[in-house]
Amino acid sequence: MIHKIAIIGNGKVGTFLSKAFADMGLDVSVYARNPKSASQKKLSELGDDSDLCLICIADRNIAELTKCIPAQKGILAHSSGTVPLEDLDIRHPNRGIFYPLMSLQAESEVDIQSIPFCLEASSESILNQLKSWAQSLDLSYYEIDSKKRKQLHLAAVISHNFSNYLYHWAWQVLQKADIDFEILKPLLSQQVKGLSAADPILNQTGPAVRGDLNTIKAHQELLENPELADLYQKLSTLIQQSNEKEL
Amino acid sequence: MIHKIAIIGNGKVGTFLSKAFADMGLDVSVYARNPKSASQKKLSELGDDSDLCLICIADRNIAELTKCIPAQKGILAHSSGTVPLEDLDIRHPNRGIFYPLMSLQAESEVDIQSIPFCLEASSESILNQLKSWAQSLDLSYYEIDSKKRKQLHLAAVISHNFSNYLYHWAWQVLQKADIDFEILKPLLSQQVKGLSAADPILNQTGPAVRGDLNTIKAHQELLENPELADLYQKLSTLIQQSNEKEL
Repeated sequence: MIHKIAIIGNGKVGTFLSKAFADMGLDVSVYARNPKSASQKKLSELGDDSDLCLICIADRNIAELTKCIPAQKGILAHSSGTVPLEDLDIRHPNRGIFYPLMSLQAESEVDIQSIPFCLEASSESILNQLKSWAQSLDLSYYEIDSKKRKQLHLAAVISHNFSNYLYHWAWQVLQKADIDFEILKPLLSQQVKGLSAADPILNQTGPAVRGDLNTIKAHQELLENPELADLYQKLSTLIQQSNEKEL
Repeated sequence: MIHKIAIIGNGKVGTFLSKAFADMGLDVSVYARNPKSASQKKLSELGDDSDLCLICIADRNIAELTKCIPAQKGILAHSSGTVPLEDLDIRHPNRGIFYPLMSLQAESEVDIQSIPFCLEASSESILNQLKSWAQSLDLSYYEIDSKKRKQLHLAAVISHNFSNYLYHWAWQVLQKADIDFEILKPLLSQQVKGLSAADPILNQTGPAVRGDLNTIKAHQELLENPELADLYQKLSTLIQQSNEKEL
């Protein structure tokens, strides 16, 4: 079973996972180019004897890094949503992916057991090792290959990063009207609570889906920034089109 | 204190509120042009002696309706996010607004106490009556005048209706890759949990805010629909611009 873990990287993901794994009683060491504390080790000290060496660094540096570190006897995996399995250097016999589908901030209070982990590996036996380990830690996991993971990452960007921008936009509107943004929180919580496997368009409400052109026009007049008025129009048109397809 | 309530309208909002108020032990009657059950009354039977007559019909019909119904001795209020107070006919001496900031579906299991109600009234004394009543029922309420309510409604459309469209878009991406949409739910729940009064742009993550042009390009190649590729670009550009403003 996987017990000795080397985490490469002391950014948001590396910090979060190393803490969570240590709290679960695993033997965790953090390696970084620039250690931030006495408990972190220099990358040059990395050996080859961890059960799992998990890379948590910027996507663009992963392939190169795997060429430079000692060939791992255990599993070498990365935690990225976009880097394909083939980018891990073949010198490491056991390669895998252990991608947490979660936006992890330095201070995020996320329960690791709530995170869906997406697993892939260079062989069935390595995949099974990752799966049994995840199971033993009571983690949620999905088998997702590199091609599907790309689509999943795209879907995460659309639903999470872009909706965060919409929240920012709504924040600006409320700011101008001197209304506390938190007033929207019950509405948005309820929306996410209602998500299931079904197409969310079935729950679409608002002026666009109702074809309420008066409200759409009034809203666009409230938006002084022409780029945002244009985005409002574009989203409203796409909602109307989706609705027409449904009918 | 408000006890006898007439709800006009048997759509989503009227049905939800009438059930919730009845569950709270209030004396509720539902009036509708087309009653759907024996317990609902015809609009022509509406009297003038309710403590609160609450209009829950389509925005565009509210002003006209208030001209046609008997002048109410109690409070006449509507539940709309967009209709101004002045649209309530002046024949009714006590006019108000009681707007639930929530997307209410026919089957929504929403706790009424979680809903922020936005209150406004034609006089300080009517506003105080609505406030004490809301307080006695343990409801959350905010004083929001018609001008602010317009901005609030716009912010709700942006953050809720438009993000629902993004969820639909993400659902389509996952559908094509044969991945269950529910995999995104922990990510999206965590995002909403993290909302506070602060500007959400401070929590912005993803390729656009990182300036990760390779990922943006790869994502746009995955999007076969040119309108959606264009929307992806527009949102990414707006995120990059917001970030530059922050720096």
